[in-house]
Amino acid sequence: MGEKMQLKVQPLDIKVGKYKVVLNVIDAKELGVNEGDRVHVRDHESLTAIVDTTKDMIAPGMIGVYHEVQEHLQREWTETVEVVPATRPKSTYVIKKMMNRERLNQEEIFSVVKDIVDESLSDVELSAFITASYMNDLSDDETEWLTRAMIDTGDRIEFDTHPIMDKHSIGGVPGNKISLLVVPIVAANGLMIPKTSSRAITGAGGTSDLMEILAPVEFDASEIKEMTEKVGGVLVWGGATNIAPADDKLIKIEYPLSVDPHCQLLASILAKKGAVGADNVVIDIPTGLGTKIENVQEGRKLARDLINMGDRLGMNVECALTYGSSPVGRTVGPALEVREALKVLETMEGPNSLIEKSAVLAGILLEMGGATAKGQGHDLAIETIRNGKALTKLKEIIEIQGGDPNVTHSDIVVGEHTAELRAPTNGYIIEFDNKRLVEIARLAGAPNDKGAGVLIHKKRGELVKKDQPILTIYAEKDWKLGNAISSAHRQLPIIVEGMLLEQVPAFKEF
Amino acid sequence: MGEKMQLKVQPLDIKVGKYKVVLNVIDAKELGVNEGDRVHVRDHESLTAIVDTTKDMIAPGMIGVYHEVQEHLQREWTETVEVVPATRPKSTYVIKKMMNRERLNQEEIFSVVKDIVDESLSDVELSAFITASYMNDLSDDETEWLTRAMIDTGDRIEFDTHPIMDKHSIGGVPGNKISLLVVPIVAANGLMIPKTSSRAITGAGGTSDLMEILAPVEFDASEIKEMTEKVGGVLVWGGATNIAPADDKLIKIEYPLSVDPHCQLLASILAKKGAVGADNVVIDIPTGLGTKIENVQEGRKLARDLINMGDRLGMNVECALTYGSSPVGRTVGPALEVREALKVLETMEGPNSLIEKSAVLAGILLEMGGATAKGQGHDLAIETIRNGKALTKLKEIIEIQGGDPNVTHSDIVVGEHTAELRAPTNGYIIEFDNKRLVEIARLAGAPNDKGAGVLIHKKRGELVKKDQPILTIYAEKDWKLGNAISSAHRQLPIIVEGMLLEQVPAFKEF
Repeated sequence: MGEKMQLKVQPLDIKVGKYKVVLNVIDAKELGVNEGDRVHVRDHESLTAIVDTTKDMIAPGMIGVYHEVQEHLQREWTETVEVVPATRPKSTYVIKKMMNRERLNQEEIFSVVKDIVDESLSDVELSAFITASYMNDLSDDETEWLTRAMIDTGDRIEFDTHPIMDKHSIGGVPGNKISLLVVPIVAANGLMIPKTSSRAITGAGGTSDLMEILAPVEFDASEIKEMTEKVGGVLVWGGATNIAPADDKLIKIEYPLSVDPHCQLLASILAKKGAVGADNVVIDIPTGLGTKIENVQEGRKLARDLINMGDRLGMNVECALTYGSSPVGRTVGPALEVREALKVLETMEGPNSLIEKSAVLAGILLEMGGATAKGQGHDLAIETIRNGKALTKLKEIIEIQGGDPNVTHSDIVVGEHTAELRAPTNGYIIEFDNKRLVEIARLAGAPNDKGAGVLIHKKRGELVKKDQPILTIYAEKDWKLGNAISSAHRQLPIIVEGMLLEQVPAFKEF
Repeated sequence: MGEKMQLKVQPLDIKVGKYKVVLNVIDAKELGVNEGDRVHVRDHESLTAIVDTTKDMIAPGMIGVYHEVQEHLQREWTETVEVVPATRPKSTYVIKKMMNRERLNQEEIFSVVKDIVDESLSDVELSAFITASYMNDLSDDETEWLTRAMIDTGDRIEFDTHPIMDKHSIGGVPGNKISLLVVPIVAANGLMIPKTSSRAITGAGGTSDLMEILAPVEFDASEIKEMTEKVGGVLVWGGATNIAPADDKLIKIEYPLSVDPHCQLLASILAKKGAVGADNVVIDIPTGLGTKIENVQEGRKLARDLINMGDRLGMNVECALTYGSSPVGRTVGPALEVREALKVLETMEGPNSLIEKSAVLAGILLEMGGATAKGQGHDLAIETIRNGKALTKLKEIIEIQGGDPNVTHSDIVVGEHTAELRAPTNGYIIEFDNKRLVEIARLAGAPNDKGAGVLIHKKRGELVKKDQPILTIYAEKDWKLGNAISSAHRQLPIIVEGMLLEQVPAFKEF
C-alpha cells in the first residue's frame, strides 16, 4: 500500500510493552488501516507499530504515541511524523497456519519467537499462538526448533570447561526448597552448576524468592558465568537475565489462560538449560494428586519427552518422578523454607523428605557429571551434607552473590504473628491438600512477605490427637494472619479420620 | 482472598475499551495479584478491573486508572480507592473448557457473550475464545445458544405486524450493491424489511458505505422500527445500533487473526436477523474462486447449516448460491456503485448480472413473504423495477432516513481523477481477480473516498482488442490514483489470452 500521512505527535505517557500508536478513526480510514493493523512510523528513525483507533481520544491529524514509540523516535509533542500502512509480520501468517493445524518449518518458528522477543505481536496474536499450540501440540521437530529459537533469541553462556550441570523442577509441590541443598552439594564436588530459577507466580515461594533472603539474585549472563567459574555454582533469578527471554513473555499470556502447552513446557525448561550450556540436567517431576502431574503414567510420558528433546539438543537429561502429594519438608513460605534448609546443612537435622529428595537428585547429578561411580551418588550427597562441605559451598555462593556468608538458620526472621491449627478429632491424617496449603500461605502474605508461611507439624499418615497442633501459620501482618486463619477454618487443608471410617448398625429396622 | 489496599488514584486519560487499572509491581505483589488478574476497585461505586503491572510508570501506593474506570468511579486525582483481589469471571473457565474441547451448556455460553458485551474479558481471553471456536467448532446446540445469547445481550425490535423480511450476503464478491435494489423491491410489494448492513473492513464498499451517499445511516433500534413501519424498509448501518453488539466486538478480534470461525459466522448473521424479528430471510452465498466460498459443495454445506440454524431460531431461511468469481455489475467503489444501482432503477438499463441477481434474491423474498405465488417472484421483482415502484420506494427510504429523495444517478459525484487500464493484447478475458480489483479500488481511496473505485468495461469471457480499455480507475486524489495505477500495472487484475494457448512443434529433434 502506498498511502502516507503526516501526523502530529501526541505523546501518551504510558508503557504498554509494545510499539503501539492510536489513530483517529477518520485518519485510519483515510490510510486504509483497521485496529490491529500495523503502520510504519517514519522520522529520522523508523519503526513498525500496532494500530489502535479512537473516535475522540486523539483528534484527526494527530497520532497518539505510547511511551515505547516515543522513546524509540525521540520525538516531542507537536512534531510530525510520516505514517504509512505496513503489512503484517510474517509470524502472524505462521500463527494462522498453526490454527489450521499445518506443520511449520524451522524458519517459520524462528520468526514467531523472534517477534515475541521483539514485542512485535499483539496480545490477540500471542494468545492465538498459545491457544493453537495448546489445542494442537507441536511435533518433536517443531518443539526442537521452538527451543532452539528461544535459546538463539537471548543471551548464551559459553563455559570454557565442561561438564556443566543443571537442575529443574516441574513444580506443583509446596515447600520444594531442594535447590538450596542440591546446588551446593553438586558444586562442592567440583562440578559447575549455574542454576537460574524463578519466582513464585501462583505458589508460596520460588527458589529465587527463597535465595533472595540470603543474597541478591539479579545478575546477567556474564556475571553468572564469572561467579560459577569462581565458586562452582550460583542460585540466581532467571527473570533478571536475558536468557531465553521469550519464555517470560509467553508465561505472561499463559497465566491468564491457566494453560501450559506441552511443547511450551518442554521448550521453556530446556531452552534455559541449553542457553547456559548445560551438558547434564536432572529434572524433578513431582507426581501425585494435587500436583501438575497426577499419575505415574503421565509423569513417565513427560520424562520420556524431556529426555528425547534433551537428546535432540545435545543434553543428557535424567528425570526423577518424586512423591508430590505432600509438601517437601515441613515448611512452606520463603523464610521458613530457608531456615529449614539451612538447619539441615548445619546440623543434618530435619525432615527426611527434604534430605532424601535432595540427596537423590544431587546424587543423580554427581553420577552424571562423573564425580562418583554409578550407584554412589546418593551416598556422596549425604556425605557432602554431613561433612559440612555443602554448607561451606552454600556460604561461598551466598558471599559471591553479595550476601552474608556467616548467616545461620537462627538468623532467619520469620513472621511474628502466628496461629495454630489443631486436629479436630483423634485419628490419622489421611488427606493433605497442597493447593489449600499454598492458598493459606499466600493469604498469610507469602511470597511477598518473606516471613509468612506455614509450618507443618503432622504430615500424611501421622497419628494425631484431638486439639494437637497440625499447622502453625506465620504472618508479618496481623490482618493477613486473620485472613489466613479464617480461610483455613472455612476449609481445612487436611482431613483427619479415625480408623473407624463408618459405623454400620447390625440391623436396619423398617 | 481478603487482602485490601488503599491506593491513590492516578488518572490515565486513555480509553482502552475495558475496565483496566495499572498497579506498581510492589503493590501487585503485596495484593497477591499478577498481570491479567482482576481487582475490585471500591469507592461509593465499585467495579471489577483487569490488572496491568508496571515497575516505574505508576508509583507504589498509586493506582493508574484508565478512562473507563475513571468515568465509572467519577474519582479525581489524589483521591483514594480501596483495591481488593477479585476472582476471575466464570466465563474465563468456560473458555478454558472450550480449549479442552469440552462441550458447554447454555448458561456457560451466555456467560461468555455477556462478558464480551460488558467488556469484562481481556484481549488474551477473547483471542483464546475465537481461536478455540475456530479450531474446534461449536456443536449445533452450542451455536444456537451462542446466537440466542448474542440476540439477548442487545436491543431487539418487536414489530406488531408480520412477516418481517431480511436479506444478508456472505460477501467476498466486489460490487455487490444489490441491497439497494432488493430492499426497495421487497418493500414496494408491501413487505417490511428492516435491513441493517455493514461498512467495508477489507472490501471497497459495504452497503452502509454506499447508502450513506444517499442518506444518513446511523439510527437506533426504535428509529429503525418506526421508519420501517412507515415506509416498509430501511438501509441502515448495523454498527450504529445496539443490535447483537457482541458481534462487532468479536469481529475486532477476528480481524487481526484473519479468521471467521464457522459457528461465529452463523451466529453473527442470524443474531442480527433474529434481533430485528425477521421471519423470512434470504442469504446470498457468492461462490467461486476468489470469494469466501470457493466451491459449490462448500456453499451447499453452509446453506444447509444456515437453514438448519434458522429453523432452530424460528426463522425461515433460504439461501442462494450465486456466481461470485466476477464482480456484480460493472462498478466497484461507493459512488460508482450507487450511480449504477440508481441508473438501473431509473432506466432499467444496466448490467444483466446486477439486475438478474437482484431480481432473483428479491423474488425469493417476495415468494417467502407471500407477495406472489411460488415461481412468480423473479418476474414480480423485474416488474417492480420496470414500473418505477422500486425507485419510488427507494426515494421514500432515502427521505425517511433524512436524504434528498430527488437525487438521480447523474447527481452522484465520482472521483475526478481517472485513468484507463488497457488490454495488453488481443484475446479473451480468461481471468478476473476479485482480490486485486478490490486492492486497486482501495488504493484509489475506496471506501473512505466515496468517489474512488473501478469501472469495468470488459468482464470475463468478453473479447478485447489490444489497447482497448478494460478498466477505468477513479480517485478523488491524484496521488492515490498514482498508487492504484502502479499497483495495477505491477500485477494486472485480469488475464487476456488469445484462443491459441500454446504452440506445439510438430516434431521434437534430439
